[in-house]
Amino acid sequence: MKKLFVLAGLLASVNLLAGQEARWIWYPGDYGIWWGNEIQSQRLQWGGRLTPFWPLYEPHSRVLFRRAVHLTADEPLEIGADGHATVCWHSPSGYHEGSAILGKFTLPKDATAIEIKIQNNDRPPSVWVKGPHLVSDSEWKVGWTTTWDTDDDLPADSSARFTDPLTPPGLTSLPVERKNPVWSRETHGHGLLADFGEETYGYLRFKDIRGKGAVRVIYAESESEALAVDLANTKPGALDGWVMLMLEEGAEMRRDIAHGFRFVHVIPVDGEVSVGALAMDRETKGLPVRGSFRCSDTELNEIWDVSVRTLELTCREVFIEGIKRDHWVWSGDAVQSFLMNYYVFGDYDGCRDTLWTLRGKDPVKCHLNRIMDYTFYWFDAVEKYRLYSGDPYIARQVYPRMKTLLEFALGRLDAAGRPVDRPGDWMFIDWAPEPLHNTGGVTAFEQMLLVRALEATAALAKEVGAADDANAYLARAKKLRDEIVPRYWNEEKGGLLHLMKADGSLDEQLTRYPNMFGLFYGYFDEAKRARVVKDVLLNDNVLKIQTPYMRFYELESLCSLGMQETVTKEIKSYWGGMLKLGATSFWELYNPSEKGVAHYAMYGRRYGKSLCHAWGASPTYLLGKYYLGVTPTQPGFAAYEVKPNLGGLEWIEGDVPAPFGRIHVKFDKKSVSVLSDGGKGVLVLPTGQRVDIPAGREISMPIP
Amino acid sequence: MKKLFVLAGLLASVNLLAGQEARWIWYPGDYGIWWGNEIQSQRLQWGGRLTPFWPLYEPHSRVLFRRAVHLTADEPLEIGADGHATVCWHSPSGYHEGSAILGKFTLPKDATAIEIKIQNNDRPPSVWVKGPHLVSDSEWKVGWTTTWDTDDDLPADSSARFTDPLTPPGLTSLPVERKNPVWSRETHGHGLLADFGEETYGYLRFKDIRGKGAVRVIYAESESEALAVDLANTKPGALDGWVMLMLEEGAEMRRDIAHGFRFVHVIPVDGEVSVGALAMDRETKGLPVRGSFRCSDTELNEIWDVSVRTLELTCREVFIEGIKRDHWVWSGDAVQSFLMNYYVFGDYDGCRDTLWTLRGKDPVKCHLNRIMDYTFYWFDAVEKYRLYSGDPYIARQVYPRMKTLLEFALGRLDAAGRPVDRPGDWMFIDWAPEPLHNTGGVTAFEQMLLVRALEATAALAKEVGAADDANAYLARAKKLRDEIVPRYWNEEKGGLLHLMKADGSLDEQLTRYPNMFGLFYGYFDEAKRARVVKDVLLNDNVLKIQTPYMRFYELESLCSLGMQETVTKEIKSYWGGMLKLGATSFWELYNPSEKGVAHYAMYGRRYGKSLCHAWGASPTYLLGKYYLGVTPTQPGFAAYEVKPNLGGLEWIEGDVPAPFGRIHVKFDKKSVSVLSDGGKGVLVLPTGQRVDIPAGREISMPIP
Repeated sequence: MKKLFVLAGLLASVNLLAGQEARWIWYPGDYGIWWGNEIQSQRLQWGGRLTPFWPLYEPHSRVLFRRAVHLTADEPLEIGADGHATVCWHSPSGYHEGSAILGKFTLPKDATAIEIKIQNNDRPPSVWVKGPHLVSDSEWKVGWTTTWDTDDDLPADSSARFTDPLTPPGLTSLPVERKNPVWSRETHGHGLLADFGEETYGYLRFKDIRGKGAVRVIYAESESEALAVDLANTKPGALDGWVMLMLEEGAEMRRDIAHGFRFVHVIPVDGEVSVGALAMDRETKGLPVRGSFRCSDTELNEIWDVSVRTLELTCREVFIEGIKRDHWVWSGDAVQSFLMNYYVFGDYDGCRDTLWTLRGKDPVKCHLNRIMDYTFYWFDAVEKYRLYSGDPYIARQVYPRMKTLLEFALGRLDAAGRPVDRPGDWMFIDWAPEPLHNTGGVTAFEQMLLVRALEATAALAKEVGAADDANAYLARAKKLRDEIVPRYWNEEKGGLLHLMKADGSLDEQLTRYPNMFGLFYGYFDEAKRARVVKDVLLNDNVLKIQTPYMRFYELESLCSLGMQETVTKEIKSYWGGMLKLGATSFWELYNPSEKGVAHYAMYGRRYGKSLCHAWGASPTYLLGKYYLGVTPTQPGFAAYEVKPNLGGLEWIEGDVPAPFGRIHVKFDKKSVSVLSDGGKGVLVLPTGQRVDIPAGREISMPIP
Repeated sequence: MKKLFVLAGLLASVNLLAGQEARWIWYPGDYGIWWGNEIQSQRLQWGGRLTPFWPLYEPHSRVLFRRAVHLTADEPLEIGADGHATVCWHSPSGYHEGSAILGKFTLPKDATAIEIKIQNNDRPPSVWVKGPHLVSDSEWKVGWTTTWDTDDDLPADSSARFTDPLTPPGLTSLPVERKNPVWSRETHGHGLLADFGEETYGYLRFKDIRGKGAVRVIYAESESEALAVDLANTKPGALDGWVMLMLEEGAEMRRDIAHGFRFVHVIPVDGEVSVGALAMDRETKGLPVRGSFRCSDTELNEIWDVSVRTLELTCREVFIEGIKRDHWVWSGDAVQSFLMNYYVFGDYDGCRDTLWTLRGKDPVKCHLNRIMDYTFYWFDAVEKYRLYSGDPYIARQVYPRMKTLLEFALGRLDAAGRPVDRPGDWMFIDWAPEPLHNTGGVTAFEQMLLVRALEATAALAKEVGAADDANAYLARAKKLRDEIVPRYWNEEKGGLLHLMKADGSLDEQLTRYPNMFGLFYGYFDEAKRARVVKDVLLNDNVLKIQTPYMRFYELESLCSLGMQETVTKEIKSYWGGMLKLGATSFWELYNPSEKGVAHYAMYGRRYGKSLCHAWGASPTYLLGKYYLGVTPTQPGFAAYEVKPNLGGLEWIEGDVPAPFGRIHVKFDKKSVSVLSDGGKGVLVLPTGQRVDIPAGREISMPIP
């Protein structure tokens, strides 16, 4: 049986412009999901690969790509397909099917639309099309259902990275560079220990192999971990597990998966075998560092440099939280990577792809990473991605899945519409020594995040024309927002209490979390703001924050109050403290009161801590956004603000990436100057004076 | 960040029995979907591969497999994993993670449950486990969400075919056998034409290649098609398209995909090249023919044999409708293949896998194959699969997706709850020269199929304990059923009219379709039944049925009335007619009034017809079910009925496959005998007398 399927309705025809660049295009999210599945299955643990404890989704196996056309002559096309391709077209005489033979297809002059179907059972279906007038780009629409429903008629995803017809994204590898260790030495029993000098990521190479047998490979971030063979290998504390390799005489072998480490210890365990030397293929995403920061304080400069290295190591096809352990993509960590990334690489593709890794597809079965707060952060991150990147397609691409995720979350609220900790959900907030939540209770913190999620979804709903959705979400947000301060405020303590218990009464505990977020989300009047700063943020008796993860928001809340001078001291003390301990990248957690190898322990494991953790790189964000002071106010920096702050330094200077190039800021006690490659800027001087910044011409203002 | 996820609730522990066979296990439907995607992308057309016009789904990329255990000692396990594996277990002390190093893992004595997580980015995740007491089988549960919701806590799929730890299903190929053509000859311009003697399926081999260049390969089912180069290659009538191969001097090449054909024509089109000889690797599923049929009529015996060959060629990993063209899996065709299969191969796995290919996953976005009737047939096929196979797991495995598909279909009914032809849906019914439906109208035929779908879903709902669902569906079915005869019956014409128009009035057209289905679904009282037989089924003035597809149901309805003698004549005339034209397999459509190559045309194409079409094999079903007369009355033939009918023949003899073996029936005018390998049978004699059939002992009864 066979029947030609005729698409319902014709597409509005558009005129095509000659000379655009052809890009590989695909269904929004397919590569984010696919790369996410690949990289998240690379977590080495217990001698195997430990996969995430949340649901994984699959890229589509067959996708339809279509584009309305208006031709004045037959259009000869070159077509590159990653998968089986059928080329179809509409014309006044009906719907037609064909194929691109050897990558060539001529679209007849009377065609009103082209539709290419790609099936790939191994990689995300994608296509590349180039003709004199018609090229593949995000102006194409994609669908998987063949019904072209409103929720399945989306702008295609594409990237300026993928324009080569011979190299579809699914057959692209990240670039590698050969590196040798800075030293290596023999250990007992023909073992070999090597130090690559700094945290690194890539494929290990075994050279000068003599004999045959099996070896254990211990990836480590510290020398003591590399030598702690038993702890690193066989105990529950084992991180990065161990690997057995059957080596062949004289051969040079390369590990099949990339991994993060600084030290490697190779120990023969079976047979007569030794490895003479180690090397590695260092793998990076090859991202140019488009942001910069320099100031009068050399320690702060070094902190910026090491933060950039930390971020570079964790920003791969999608952004992982640490190179040592998980290779899992955590929403709470990723949304911070995005913000840092906007001030270092401006790798908008990476942010977008990671948003998709986190979101996956429908049906939604649990919170992102199974964590309620991590679901909420994601919505804010989508809106911020839209703001920084200026991506004109993301709203239409992501809104359907934004809505289904939000509806899932709303379906788990309590009867009063507030976020509660349901069985199977994890209310994380932060790693802290005291419990921060209570089953059945509601925290002010989670409620604030939910408000933000509703507002962000409403913003994108508006953009796609879903006004009813937007109004409903905004009304819900306002109701939740308005009840927070009246309910949680404690006048005696001068801040918001942490928790309303299941019986409706308030727990006496006061934490920094709701107060920090309340500050930069504007929950307080002036009097309350002053109390919060004094009695919570600057009060050493309130539970201190130890993770760089929450330090991020704590320092951001101080910066948002103009307290950069305090923040400078905090950064130098906290991040400078890690540098003094020899850190070549920033850690998952740092407790200045600990000593020696105690720094490496976490999760009850002697070497449990990750020493190259994305959330450790937050100074890049703080220095870019709150010292150089550059913030977009319209999508893609079409409009932006520069509100520089010396933070107690003599001078600062640097660049912030924007889609159109860079915004350069130079500031000392006498003058401030800005040079931007584009956009419409406003320089806000310490006096409050506002000065327009034109594109492409430096302005310089004296500081009174 | 990292957190061990603790499964909510403990599993009920069970005692394990030693000595079971370990099978590969997977998430229900994953292989049906994966094989379906593979085979459905093999349709050669327009010089490329034409993929289905309905949505395709993806197998899961990560699956959790779990089993409650009760051990008396540590259990050493061998574990085979197709994908990255983590082995976890519960014990009184909590939840633990580990890995199977080199396929070995010892489950501690105090374990109460094991959970193995498998991720595979290329093939469906599957696992094989063997210990002294614990083995992998369908007693294991699977989930993909990690939340173990009720709709994601299903019995694993498995098959007796996949027990080798070194060969997971995803790395298994169907067996092949080398075949040479029965003759070949040179055609003009160094072409080569070969005849493989009968319809066949497999990978073509090119031998004795001289020179270099490109050739066209024309797969054909008739010699005239093979020689009609232009028609077969470049016109819209092109089926099986054409392929260009760059051949190398002296090399022997094999085509990378299997295809169906009898004739092959290879024609050089570019460069100086010739192919000296052709051969093929014939691929089959290797299914033993467990059913049999012989009778006093040699033509009928040949019809049975050719039907079996037709069925064998179309029953692959999943069942395709024809080997020449589509390789697509159509529900209407497949459900007939299932019924034939139950009487020929008893390949229950193939039926189950094909049910999953058709159903895919959620969300449901359109009817199966975009055809309303094809959705409805599927439900009945699930219930029949349950009945014939006795599969004790299918109800729990499939019910969640049965329900979501049914809810989709119910969501498309009109205000009165009747099935209407909505935009984007296809109401197929049958290929016929007159329109059989009308947009906005309701056909009695579709309404009957919907009733059956509701009843079948209710039956499975009951089995899984969803009593509320079952009652709601049954109430709905009864309401729809009760209104059919009063509304559509036309006393003057003696049958059900075809269509109620959108305005509620009846169209005057009377067709066989609702009347046939009304007969075997028991819609008529005795008086109406007699009218329908006389005035519709045996009335040559009513639009005749030409497709073997609907002949299937037409002849079945006659058989259900005991009119086998009429059916014998019909089979000999219709199927015998194809044999007289040299058919080596049965066709998609046969019109006895056509002549010569006109038989090969269809869909407006000169060689559009498929000459090896599954629905052509229906005599196997009719002869097994209505002549040998064997029907299961309880799942898996635990109880069955034998009601043989000579159909005007001198004698009949044959076997019907059952899960436990075979049921042998021998019947002539003097006596009937039955020997069954199992089950509890009842022999129904022509007199109406009922005789118990014991398992394993032949009974023989004289015919009075």
